[in-house]
Amino acid sequence: MDTSNQSTPFSIRDTAINDSFWSPFMERIRTKVIPYQWDALNDRIPDAEPSYCMRNFKLAAELTHPELDYGVPGDIGYGGTVFQDSDIAKWIEAASYSLVWHPDPELEKNLDGAIDIICDAQQKDGYLDTYYIINGLDRRFTNLKDNHELYCFGHFLEAAAAHYEATGKRKLLDALIRYAECISRHIGPEEGKLHGYPGHEIAEMALIRLYGVTKDERHLKLARYFIDQRGQRPLYFEEETQRNNNDFPWKDSYMQYQYYQAGKPVRDQHRAEGHAVRAVYLYAGMADAARLTGDKKLRDACETLFANIAGKQMYITGSIGQSAYGESFSYDYDLPNDTVYGETCAAIGLAFFARRMCSITPRSAYADVLEKTLYNGIISGMSLDGRAFFYVNPLEALPEASLKDPRMRHVKIERQKWFACACCPPNLARIIASLGAYVHSLNVDTLYTHLYLGNEAKCTVGGKEVSLKTETRYPWEGRIDITFTATSGGAFFAYGLRIPGWCRSYTLELNGEKTAAVVQDGYAMLKREWRDGDRLTLVFDMPVTLVESSPHVRENRGKAALMRGPVVYCLEEADNGKELYRLRLGTPAACSVTYEKDLLEGVTVISFAGKREKDWPKDELYRPLDDPVLEDRPLRFIPYYAWANRGPGEMTVWVNR
Amino acid sequence: MDTSNQSTPFSIRDTAINDSFWSPFMERIRTKVIPYQWDALNDRIPDAEPSYCMRNFKLAAELTHPELDYGVPGDIGYGGTVFQDSDIAKWIEAASYSLVWHPDPELEKNLDGAIDIICDAQQKDGYLDTYYIINGLDRRFTNLKDNHELYCFGHFLEAAAAHYEATGKRKLLDALIRYAECISRHIGPEEGKLHGYPGHEIAEMALIRLYGVTKDERHLKLARYFIDQRGQRPLYFEEETQRNNNDFPWKDSYMQYQYYQAGKPVRDQHRAEGHAVRAVYLYAGMADAARLTGDKKLRDACETLFANIAGKQMYITGSIGQSAYGESFSYDYDLPNDTVYGETCAAIGLAFFARRMCSITPRSAYADVLEKTLYNGIISGMSLDGRAFFYVNPLEALPEASLKDPRMRHVKIERQKWFACACCPPNLARIIASLGAYVHSLNVDTLYTHLYLGNEAKCTVGGKEVSLKTETRYPWEGRIDITFTATSGGAFFAYGLRIPGWCRSYTLELNGEKTAAVVQDGYAMLKREWRDGDRLTLVFDMPVTLVESSPHVRENRGKAALMRGPVVYCLEEADNGKELYRLRLGTPAACSVTYEKDLLEGVTVISFAGKREKDWPKDELYRPLDDPVLEDRPLRFIPYYAWANRGPGEMTVWVNR
Repeated sequence: MDTSNQSTPFSIRDTAINDSFWSPFMERIRTKVIPYQWDALNDRIPDAEPSYCMRNFKLAAELTHPELDYGVPGDIGYGGTVFQDSDIAKWIEAASYSLVWHPDPELEKNLDGAIDIICDAQQKDGYLDTYYIINGLDRRFTNLKDNHELYCFGHFLEAAAAHYEATGKRKLLDALIRYAECISRHIGPEEGKLHGYPGHEIAEMALIRLYGVTKDERHLKLARYFIDQRGQRPLYFEEETQRNNNDFPWKDSYMQYQYYQAGKPVRDQHRAEGHAVRAVYLYAGMADAARLTGDKKLRDACETLFANIAGKQMYITGSIGQSAYGESFSYDYDLPNDTVYGETCAAIGLAFFARRMCSITPRSAYADVLEKTLYNGIISGMSLDGRAFFYVNPLEALPEASLKDPRMRHVKIERQKWFACACCPPNLARIIASLGAYVHSLNVDTLYTHLYLGNEAKCTVGGKEVSLKTETRYPWEGRIDITFTATSGGAFFAYGLRIPGWCRSYTLELNGEKTAAVVQDGYAMLKREWRDGDRLTLVFDMPVTLVESSPHVRENRGKAALMRGPVVYCLEEADNGKELYRLRLGTPAACSVTYEKDLLEGVTVISFAGKREKDWPKDELYRPLDDPVLEDRPLRFIPYYAWANRGPGEMTVWVNR
Repeated sequence: MDTSNQSTPFSIRDTAINDSFWSPFMERIRTKVIPYQWDALNDRIPDAEPSYCMRNFKLAAELTHPELDYGVPGDIGYGGTVFQDSDIAKWIEAASYSLVWHPDPELEKNLDGAIDIICDAQQKDGYLDTYYIINGLDRRFTNLKDNHELYCFGHFLEAAAAHYEATGKRKLLDALIRYAECISRHIGPEEGKLHGYPGHEIAEMALIRLYGVTKDERHLKLARYFIDQRGQRPLYFEEETQRNNNDFPWKDSYMQYQYYQAGKPVRDQHRAEGHAVRAVYLYAGMADAARLTGDKKLRDACETLFANIAGKQMYITGSIGQSAYGESFSYDYDLPNDTVYGETCAAIGLAFFARRMCSITPRSAYADVLEKTLYNGIISGMSLDGRAFFYVNPLEALPEASLKDPRMRHVKIERQKWFACACCPPNLARIIASLGAYVHSLNVDTLYTHLYLGNEAKCTVGGKEVSLKTETRYPWEGRIDITFTATSGGAFFAYGLRIPGWCRSYTLELNGEKTAAVVQDGYAMLKREWRDGDRLTLVFDMPVTLVESSPHVRENRGKAALMRGPVVYCLEEADNGKELYRLRLGTPAACSVTYEKDLLEGVTVISFAGKREKDWPKDELYRPLDDPVLEDRPLRFIPYYAWANRGPGEMTVWVNR
């Protein structure tokens, strides 16, 4: 495999974000989500179900070290879901990121305290999962399929690496290295070991991240084993289920073991199938492994799976997982707008996957998906006050249907305060808190910019230290100004600026002069010696665009959606009244595009003259087809991500033409 | 209440059907369904779950009369659902009807034998429900809400009346009169009695039918009590649930006791709500009571409920019950085509209700619904070989969705052989076998014809015996010829011929001369002295009509359906390939309308030049809106009821315009 064009993202430490769009989101994560979650993990939220998460660790620590006494009542056992441990791991990860861009001694102290308790719970052999420490270690590793042991392990690896990168402290990292050794003693290709792999993936990409820190080949090897062994015959999950008399919840489903992406070897998987979050977490790990190992078949599988998602199973918002049934992918071109699952975590996982595909081969097509998820299906998961969250991100909402229609019972029309299964809020926290790592990437002699937002970044390229400062009002405006600082003199390297897939026209100026750049895989490439003070000005035309979906998508026939730049828009009842399906786009002539700073924390609103189907003269249900009687009706669109911040009501992304 | 315009349907004995469309259906019922069901009820179908129905009666008879020995193993208790008794009742009803138009000594013997066993199971006090006879009579009448005691009672009343009308035999009728007395001793307004009513309605209309036979006011009174007491505070079902510690499956549902139409008094119910079959069975009983008692408030409630169904909750096929959740009505204008429940039994119940509304006030609007259900949503429930059945009658079918999408798991794309809950096939049998009773109705001096099909009917009107013979190729052709025979000389009366709601133009000739008739409530009225040999020729124009649905129906925006006469058409994959949602009607100019006698047991097929959305040049999922590229595509429509008789495939009623 030709690995010359591979690139690696910047570390979280190398990019400082100062952006009018994203900084408020990051602040909400820092000031609302992270403190709230810390209280939740410690069962300090009044009127909420306890999390039990930290209590489980304290109890496990008391069991491991009887001299310890956290005052946990001894007669109360393990609490919460089987994957409750992962909650504190996600919190540690997000909180660590936030320390990078906002040092906070008190938060750091809380982190250290939590890590102390966690490490106290670790067994002598390195094992660290409170569900089994409390319920009986003899049952550990007996249900990799459904008991999330390796999932919690993976999340802790991410947490350990993030904490180490953010603070330089090794305590959690070393604990996880020992846990990885413990797992390697029990699981692997050698005779006498379990030939298993995670039921809920994440350990694959997490081990590769650990390998990035430790450079210990054993960590890469374990990740590769998890990937390569997955779905090999005889199926480990089938054997494990029989051997241990485990339940198999999908035995009557068409999905079978593909619910876990474990029905066939990963290189033979050509469609995204099964539980959507698990799927994209696996694919992200596969992409990492393909990049590091040059495994062409694995890369091909990643490309095929990515193409299947982006070309046949992805909503225009970047949401994935069409079906509430198993929170899963369903079938190609099945994209219902009202009954969609579209879990926030799945969009986040797709962003992970897209970013890693971009690292194998920088292509705007990958970064387009990354950008689409970030500006739409990911941030739609959080209210604008940072206090309420969507699991499910519908593209059409009807309050009466959510109340009365079981097809839409999972579709909430208002974000919820917190969840018993608290996966989405902390996942939002960890991606938004680490957004700095998504902006640029680097290979030996090429610097790429994938996302446009205000930031200052530094790297070493062409043997020189280079800084670049980006200023922009993106996504509301199309102008991006980039200034280089080459502190140690001019640096010769190629710089690739992503031209988004949505962009039909743009201009590029270098130091005030129009410049032409070859566009390669969607990146405008400028190869030159960059000098201190060099200025690039990239201006994207940002017209309002009506978008249609492929003829294969039955749900969207006769409809269009509205986009401007990367932002998908929607109609809300608050602006347009009820029965949004009676509205028609007509032929929008003059749009008004207005930034309203006091609306929804500042959004660009799009208005134009549309139509509305009038009521029939008689109150009939059916009649011979007649010309529709349409009345003029101004339509007012807001960005999709900002919906449901003004009370319950209807919403739709796709509008009748 | 002015009851002068009330009419009563003909008895099953008064109309002999000989019709090219309906007689084959009746023959299928007689030769396939009734014998198959008899074997099923006696557990004689290989490879099928036993019904246990007749075995339960034998066991109950042995318990009641220890001298009897049917050889039922003593250690096996009650089998089947709690309402298993109703299956034999429906069979007796349908089989009795068939004896009227096709005498069959062997069938009559089987009927007598079954009735003997049933009567042997009856308790001394008249009680007759094998579930409680076998499981313990101390628990009887403790769960009227969910245990279907009064539902089975109601079906047996229908069976007893039908058997008596068909054969003149009183054995089952007398048994049911005793059972009605038993129930009246336990349930009623008096102190010390239970103030209850059926959880699954049917006893209301059945008791009124019994009253029609017995003229015993107590039977009418019990029916009225069931209707009037329903939903009164304190709610009987709530009290019963608490008192007997019963389950309440709908306690977390928005429906609550309205699942049973028992959350408020029936006269305060303005929307059809809850389980659809139960609802329309209740409404049919209410209509019967309103007709007999002149209760204006009850009639108003019936009219309001009928208008709600026909105007806001009914599919174009006459199917009702939009939601698989509780097999229920959902909310106004919610008419999803793919996830619909649309149970065959519910369409049958709507036909019952419509026929009874027609009897209060003959209006074509009621008979339109009756006709719509019969030619579409009812007979779609049975395969053309009479051997397979749909519970659920979708208006759009996608095989992959039915396999993979839990929203459509109840939507089968092929009719099933039989059902564990065998409600729909015998219900089809009893309505089709009694179709003769739906054709005409009569009040003192007015004869009405509601349905057009080949038949000979006789009645006494204007003091004279009159016969009329109808010949027609309806619904394939619009011409109807009616010949009168007035055996005892001319008879002076008004004759109302229904002008269907779908009809825009027609001609009427009397003895070869065009005649004008005043149309009153949708009936062309001819008042004159009718003489032997008078001939009427009614010719409906029957153009192919594109139909649209109200702007309030979100699922059908931009679509149209095709009808000709009362028959709703559909596109099937067998004729039109896959991805039916890519087809467009365009502007159909010249239709070809062809009767194909060898297709689907003989159907009229409609073809015209439509369009199909071509694939996009690039394999994209989204793109800026462009003019669609359409290719010409001939469209071939078949009658909806005949779909799914040529193997699995896609189907749709509503087609993009």
